[in-house]
Amino acid sequence: MDSELEANSSAIDEHFKYVFKSFGRSRVNEAMQYALLGGKKLRGYLVNQSSKLFEIDLPKSIWAACSIEALHAYSLVHDDLPAMDNDDLRRGKPTVHKKWDEATAILTGDALQTLSFQLLSDPRFKVGDDCRLNLVYELSVASGADGMVLGQALDILAETADAPLKLDDIVRMQRMKTGALIEWSACSGAVISGEDPSALLEYSRSVGLAFQIMDDILDIEGDPSKVGKRVNKDQDAGKATFVSLLGMDTAKSHSASLIDRANEALTPYGARAKNLQRLASFVISRNK
Amino acid sequence: MDSELEANSSAIDEHFKYVFKSFGRSRVNEAMQYALLGGKKLRGYLVNQSSKLFEIDLPKSIWAACSIEALHAYSLVHDDLPAMDNDDLRRGKPTVHKKWDEATAILTGDALQTLSFQLLSDPRFKVGDDCRLNLVYELSVASGADGMVLGQALDILAETADAPLKLDDIVRMQRMKTGALIEWSACSGAVISGEDPSALLEYSRSVGLAFQIMDDILDIEGDPSKVGKRVNKDQDAGKATFVSLLGMDTAKSHSASLIDRANEALTPYGARAKNLQRLASFVISRNK
Repeated sequence: MDSELEANSSAIDEHFKYVFKSFGRSRVNEAMQYALLGGKKLRGYLVNQSSKLFEIDLPKSIWAACSIEALHAYSLVHDDLPAMDNDDLRRGKPTVHKKWDEATAILTGDALQTLSFQLLSDPRFKVGDDCRLNLVYELSVASGADGMVLGQALDILAETADAPLKLDDIVRMQRMKTGALIEWSACSGAVISGEDPSALLEYSRSVGLAFQIMDDILDIEGDPSKVGKRVNKDQDAGKATFVSLLGMDTAKSHSASLIDRANEALTPYGARAKNLQRLASFVISRNK
Repeated sequence: MDSELEANSSAIDEHFKYVFKSFGRSRVNEAMQYALLGGKKLRGYLVNQSSKLFEIDLPKSIWAACSIEALHAYSLVHDDLPAMDNDDLRRGKPTVHKKWDEATAILTGDALQTLSFQLLSDPRFKVGDDCRLNLVYELSVASGADGMVLGQALDILAETADAPLKLDDIVRMQRMKTGALIEWSACSGAVISGEDPSALLEYSRSVGLAFQIMDDILDIEGDPSKVGKRVNKDQDAGKATFVSLLGMDTAKSHSASLIDRANEALTPYGARAKNLQRLASFVISRNK
């Protein structure tokens, strides 16, 4: 799995290089490229593999893969800001506001969000206008005030709440904060092809939740040098997590059963869905 | 002119109310609506008037008008942040980070940007997919890392530069910072209709520059109770402005000649362009 993810990651990095060639040079552009480098690029991998199911080839799907990675990178740059999670380290490197300054980090996140919509609407992304417009609409719904941003806002509010969140609240919050983008990514191949995304949606709901449970597990059991960011931060902040609510053993067995459910959802695609199934298993076996 | 702008502003506020009805209630959604209230809504007026030239009626153009106002509001909320311009007052009210906090202001700006792309791609905006996708693309180019964000970054850098900016630098910086969105707004009617926007582009370049010169004039001569934000801030910061470089009299006569040029550019549209011409004259006669 690692070598496939690496190949995917390189393809995405290459495409970003190509895109940035036509941009002017500036501090913000430099910081954008810095923020895009590294990471597992799982969302981009989901886009490319989901597209492959519908025989959409990489030169097309890479535009959507880069779009979701730009959107994800914007969310990380802003989440790391002092007024938000106040993190110094991301993907093993100083965060953007640490390497430059807060103003640069705010503008860099802003421009990364804009870039994600620019990539979907770029005339060089050669799929039908109706499909690209659907991608734009679904991405805006998934990431906006009723999606990812709301999830992040609820997460911040939870830190100062009188009582820790309950399991249902965390499931809901995490589904908006990280789940919505994972769902968009997994469904994108169907959207690009104008096909029914419901099997992929079911797959991605389970994968998204398992991914977040695993993030909570890694926050406790992870090796900081591999995870590339601060660990024990939820525990230190006294925040309720899947692990604190379920216990470590149940958290692990629940995430494993979610992956089984995810893989079953892909049955209609038969052997063609092998890579998506391997990715699901990777999500709960990863160490970073 | 004032009553027409007020009618336009009410129509935009009403449409936002309609849009927010289908959103959940949250602090960020509340702050978004707060940030959208008030202001002259000049960009939205440009969209609606430009659309009228091509017989696109208000129920259609209002989606694009609200889109550009959401984009503009996002830029104001983020520009006002302590790490950026650090302003307490906007449109005569406390800025979002003053009324709530910095985290809320960052997320509110983020979600307003997302909203602007959501509005353009909303299925209820009934114009061709190709035209809406063009609007998305042009808006992302105008507002992103080579457009508005770059203009803002250059403006911040200018504050700590060894030498004040020269006139050419300021023209370039302002064209990106405010001009690009004004150009998008003025051209939007042609883009929605698939027509040639070049006359509108020429008009908006002159109007955009005159608008910015007038902003610098109001920063010195404006009445804070009318302008609704801090005045003398550029002068206090020792920043080069059109007024400091040209002198007050030349700044005024230059902006007047830009408006003449803008109005001439609209000749091909004859009497139908009357409102756009009146708007141009308003830009240099306004007191807020």
